[in-house]
Amino acid sequence: MHAVDLIRKKRDGQRLSRSELEFLITGYVRGEIPDYQMAAWNMAVYFKGMEPEEITDLTLIMAQSGDMLDLSAIQGTKVDKHSTGGVGDTTTLIVAPLVASLGIPVAKMSGRGLGHTGGTVDKLESIPGFKVTLSPEEFVQQVNAIGLSLVGQTGQLAPADKLLYALRDVTATVESIPLIASSIMSKKIAAGADGFVLDVKVGSGAFMKSEEDAIALARTMVQIGTLAKRQTVALVTDMNQPLGRGIGNALEVKEAILTLRGEGPQRLTELCIELSVEMLLLAGVTNDRSEARKRLEQSLVEKKALRKFSELIAAQGGDPRVLEDLSLLPQARYTRDIHAPSTGYVQSVDPMVIGVSAMELGAGRENKDTIIDLAVGVELQTEVGGPVRAGEVLATLYANDEKKLEQASVRALKAFQIGEARPVVPPTIYRKITAKEL
Amino acid sequence: MHAVDLIRKKRDGQRLSRSELEFLITGYVRGEIPDYQMAAWNMAVYFKGMEPEEITDLTLIMAQSGDMLDLSAIQGTKVDKHSTGGVGDTTTLIVAPLVASLGIPVAKMSGRGLGHTGGTVDKLESIPGFKVTLSPEEFVQQVNAIGLSLVGQTGQLAPADKLLYALRDVTATVESIPLIASSIMSKKIAAGADGFVLDVKVGSGAFMKSEEDAIALARTMVQIGTLAKRQTVALVTDMNQPLGRGIGNALEVKEAILTLRGEGPQRLTELCIELSVEMLLLAGVTNDRSEARKRLEQSLVEKKALRKFSELIAAQGGDPRVLEDLSLLPQARYTRDIHAPSTGYVQSVDPMVIGVSAMELGAGRENKDTIIDLAVGVELQTEVGGPVRAGEVLATLYANDEKKLEQASVRALKAFQIGEARPVVPPTIYRKITAKEL
Repeated sequence: MHAVDLIRKKRDGQRLSRSELEFLITGYVRGEIPDYQMAAWNMAVYFKGMEPEEITDLTLIMAQSGDMLDLSAIQGTKVDKHSTGGVGDTTTLIVAPLVASLGIPVAKMSGRGLGHTGGTVDKLESIPGFKVTLSPEEFVQQVNAIGLSLVGQTGQLAPADKLLYALRDVTATVESIPLIASSIMSKKIAAGADGFVLDVKVGSGAFMKSEEDAIALARTMVQIGTLAKRQTVALVTDMNQPLGRGIGNALEVKEAILTLRGEGPQRLTELCIELSVEMLLLAGVTNDRSEARKRLEQSLVEKKALRKFSELIAAQGGDPRVLEDLSLLPQARYTRDIHAPSTGYVQSVDPMVIGVSAMELGAGRENKDTIIDLAVGVELQTEVGGPVRAGEVLATLYANDEKKLEQASVRALKAFQIGEARPVVPPTIYRKITAKEL
Repeated sequence: MHAVDLIRKKRDGQRLSRSELEFLITGYVRGEIPDYQMAAWNMAVYFKGMEPEEITDLTLIMAQSGDMLDLSAIQGTKVDKHSTGGVGDTTTLIVAPLVASLGIPVAKMSGRGLGHTGGTVDKLESIPGFKVTLSPEEFVQQVNAIGLSLVGQTGQLAPADKLLYALRDVTATVESIPLIASSIMSKKIAAGADGFVLDVKVGSGAFMKSEEDAIALARTMVQIGTLAKRQTVALVTDMNQPLGRGIGNALEVKEAILTLRGEGPQRLTELCIELSVEMLLLAGVTNDRSEARKRLEQSLVEKKALRKFSELIAAQGGDPRVLEDLSLLPQARYTRDIHAPSTGYVQSVDPMVIGVSAMELGAGRENKDTIIDLAVGVELQTEVGGPVRAGEVLATLYANDEKKLEQASVRALKAFQIGEARPVVPPTIYRKITAKEL
């Protein structure tokens, strides 16, 4: 087998067999197939695509290129949740304890933030004392003990994906649905869960700008999961405005706590419940969607989910008093409000501009080596469709650097469009993709 | 400027500016842009193509990446001729002295053979004593003295093309018309001529299998030449059977000599005259096509072209007696005839199979390091359309190794298809592409 023939085959729109993909990917990981052949192959995939079985083969080969987490020591169906990344998306911090509070084991690995999107692991680190690094044994043990663990990536998951992604990043082949889907799903499968609920963001603040692309990505990932014998469902959800009101690490933990208390913003709460419903159904706890919803709402009202979050914090070395006293979270030295320049309705809140403002304040990473500031960020005081009067506060910025605060305030104000007409508010959830619909 | 942005731009079908191409190509030659980015860019070009001005920019940048031969010390319009490569294509050995015999300076660099196609420089080396290596000064001096010089590549012409071609070869991006055209034309332009007559082969023995592709390549090269202010014309010619009857180095020199004596095969003679007519017209010797043809035919009849070839051989250290005594050419130890299995008409003679048979005998290179045998090859005794009786000789094979002779005989026989019906004989020249028609 020669790599050049496999490049030509893909270039000519043919499907590669499992053994051909294995030759290509394992050869690449071993350094036997050079970057330039892989780069040409990626570009051929960009133009010619891949068939569902082919993408699944690729995904499984990438998953098996490193450690495959074994969660069999955890009883029950392990369901994982993944978001393709957005602004003000603190759902994991809410969904994980919420689902775990109903007895479904949650053994979840998360990543760090990059660019305008945050990462769950960074957010968790703003809880005083919280440890995101557990050994695989501690991780499993904790899930068996309290039903929940949230950690950073442990072991070497899908190194093939890491190599491929770095190459795609410098060769303009990031925007390929088969390559995006296999990248995400290879890491998810290596992380050991039995089923996946995928949150595919769409809109100006998401990687997928059009609903069509988002649906295609969602479909592809559901196909991969299903063909790989993992129950998989995807929600295509809105990212034309930030999901929650807090953008920044401690601010998002605060918002998660408020939501678990039943005091969260409506859109965030709605999406968390919908994602949790899907997780309950996949876990086989019930077949009845409305019953699942009822049990989740009850857990919130009875503060069971909040108590589960408290157990999680305690188990991972954090200070659970933070749930009662939000001032224990990192606090920024400076705050500044930005004000509506005119009276009307909020037509749009650009999530990319808000995300970049928060990054500018120090909440996010411009590159992998940036040291982030957990306390800073943006807190929105309104949302799309909200009526505002001239001079009313649109958002509050939190900073530890006055110069950055000044810059970010100018930027953040540009995120808001105020107009006279009452705008059509986009739905939170556009659609659901299940294996049945494929 | 970032390479990844230029890859994305091409991926999205946009035209790159001259400065962008310069950044890419000179950066690549300097080793500042890695192979993997160039490979991705090549694949993007494969799918998205390039605009004529863009290909011309690329070609000139590649030409200027190394030495640019200065032929200004040679008086008159220097017209070069290039063939995209075929089997039994010994036109250069005929056209160069033929055109030079009419006072047009021919300063021509040629290459060596690879795979099933031969190279002019190899063929010349089968003339005892002939030197293909001259310094640039000797090269120019000789053209001024006798009007003709045929040498191997001197200096470092278009190193960017050399690097790019090696990369394309291992990344399945050879078959891209903009990249093929710029590769050929960059070397031609660097070699210093004022105009070009291009012989674009089409058919089963050529790189271009379809007339459509061959025309597209011819058009693109004529466009580049014209935009680069070199008069350029292309003939699209048949390679569905070997052009001449000799395939192998000394056998092709013999055939060139016979053709210069007026005893060559009809198709080869016809193409040589047509290519020479175009060269005369480009050189501005006459505007009258039929006059050009008459003068060329006269030169052959009067043996002026043959005498010019004799002068060339003498000037480059070879033994001109070879023109009178063909036995001075390298002779093979063994010969074998292959015979028609049935009576009928020759339906086809597969040039690829004949070319590979000759290579197998030692006439060609499987890779760059193969040492070739100048004496061996195949001599056809018939051609497409020829009537044959069962048992009649179809071809004679020449070898210095009995085992190879055995193998090649079995293979070569498969090149011939004999059938009852008289076949339609393909034309030698399909069409001409000039700047006016673009």
